[in-house]
Amino acid sequence: MPETTTTYELYYWPFIQGRGEFVRLVLEDAGLDYVDVARLPESRGGGLQAVLALMNGPLPNGPRPFAPPYVRHGNLVLAQTALVCRYVAEHAGLAPEGALDRLRADQLMLTIADGVAETHDIHHPISASLYYDDQRDAAKRRAEVFTHERLARFLGYFEAVLEDNARGRGEVAIADRTSYVDLALFQLMAGLEYALPKAFARVTAATPRLRALAAVVAERPRVAAYLASERRIPFNAQGIFRYYPELDEP
Amino acid sequence: MPETTTTYELYYWPFIQGRGEFVRLVLEDAGLDYVDVARLPESRGGGLQAVLALMNGPLPNGPRPFAPPYVRHGNLVLAQTALVCRYVAEHAGLAPEGALDRLRADQLMLTIADGVAETHDIHHPISASLYYDDQRDAAKRRAEVFTHERLARFLGYFEAVLEDNARGRGEVAIADRTSYVDLALFQLMAGLEYALPKAFARVTAATPRLRALAAVVAERPRVAAYLASERRIPFNAQGIFRYYPELDEP
Repeated sequence: MPETTTTYELYYWPFIQGRGEFVRLVLEDAGLDYVDVARLPESRGGGLQAVLALMNGPLPNGPRPFAPPYVRHGNLVLAQTALVCRYVAEHAGLAPEGALDRLRADQLMLTIADGVAETHDIHHPISASLYYDDQRDAAKRRAEVFTHERLARFLGYFEAVLEDNARGRGEVAIADRTSYVDLALFQLMAGLEYALPKAFARVTAATPRLRALAAVVAERPRVAAYLASERRIPFNAQGIFRYYPELDEP
Repeated sequence: MPETTTTYELYYWPFIQGRGEFVRLVLEDAGLDYVDVARLPESRGGGLQAVLALMNGPLPNGPRPFAPPYVRHGNLVLAQTALVCRYVAEHAGLAPEGALDRLRADQLMLTIADGVAETHDIHHPISASLYYDDQRDAAKRRAEVFTHERLARFLGYFEAVLEDNARGRGEVAIADRTSYVDLALFQLMAGLEYALPKAFARVTAATPRLRALAAVVAERPRVAAYLASERRIPFNAQGIFRYYPELDEP
C-alpha cells in the first residue's frame, strides 16, 4: 500500500463542488496534506488540462479514470467518488474499524451516490451534454416525481438508518464514530437544501436525526474551517445541485 | 468475517435479470452454494415478500438495504450491486489478488454500474415509477444521445482499459486473471446487444478486445452451463436492458 504520508492529489473540475466535494470533505476533515490539482495555475501543472491528461492516456499500473473526481496517491490513480472517499477515509481514520462495518459504510456511501446521480438528472434528464434550456420540459416532469416521491424515499431511508443505528450503537451512520458516510450525508443535505429549498424543508421536517447529524458535521472544527474558507466553492448553476425555482416542487 | 462456507442468499426480483444478474454471474462462475430467495415459493420463504421484508425493518447489525439486489451471508446483509459482486468475488477467488488491484477492479465495476444506470434511464428518463409509454418522447431524445455519444464513450473506455492492460499484464480487465469485472463486462455487452442491436453492432465494430473478452467469458464452463440453464431468466421488457426498436439509434 502507498505510504499514508504521501500527498494526495485530487483531480476534479475547479469551478464546482460537484462530486469532488465529497472527496474534499474527507481530505479536509482528516486534516490531510492534499493538492487540488486543477485549482493550481497551469504554469504549475494545474488547470483543466491536468484533469483530462490522466484520463486520455494509458497509466502504467492500472485503468485510467473514466471521469473525475479521481486521486493520485503514490502509485495509485483511483476514480469513482464513493471508492475514493472510502480509500482516503480508510487511510485517515474516517472509516469504521471492522471489516463488516466497512462494507456497510460502503453500501451507504454508494446509496448516497445513487441519490446524487438522481438529483443531478433532475436538471439533465435527457443528457448532460445538452443545455438545461433544451431539456427544461422533461426536467420539470422529472423534478415533479423526484421532489414528491424520490426525495422522501432517499432521506426517509437515511433517517431510518440513523434511527436503527442509534438504538444500539451511536448517533452516526455506522457503528459509533464519525465516518466519511456522515460527511457525505452532510454534503447531500447541504446540496439538496440549496437546490430544492421548498421540497427540502417539507421532507426534512420528518428527518430530525438527519438534520441533527448534518449540523454536527458542519460544526466539526476542520469542516467548519473549510466551509468558511475560500477553498469551499459556493454552490452555483454549473454543479450537480442547482437552484432552478421551477424544479422545486413543480 | 463470515465463513466462506456459509450459504449465500441472494435477494432480487425473480422475474428479471436486472442488476441481480451481475451477482448471479459471480455466484455461478464461482460454483458457490447459493439460494435465489425470491425464486423459491412463498411457502418456503420465497417470493417478492422475502425481498421486501428485509428492506422494511431494522436489521440487528447494520443498515437495511435501500434496494435489491442484496445478499445475506452469515451476519452480513449487504446491498449495492457493485459492492455485493466485490464481496462475493473476494471470497471466491474471482477478485484480483493485491490490495491496489482490488481497488482498481472496484473502480471499473462502479464504472460499469454507471453505464448500466445510464442504459436503464434510456427507457425511463423521467421516472422509474411511470410507464414507458408515458415518457416515450423523452426516452427517444435520451436514446438518441446515448446511442450516438455515450455508448461509444463507455465501450471505448473499456476497450482502452483492456488494451492498456494487455500491454503489460493480461487479456482481462485487471491484472492477469479473470475477475468479477470481466463477468460484469460480459453481462453489460450481452444486455446492450439485446437492447440496442443496431447501435451495439456499429459501436463494437471498434471494440474487438471487448467482444473477444465477452466471448471468452461466455465459454467459461460454469458460465456456459448457467446461460444454458433455466436459472438464466431471458431478457424481457421489464428489465434494465429492454428492446424498444424506436430507441435503437433514433
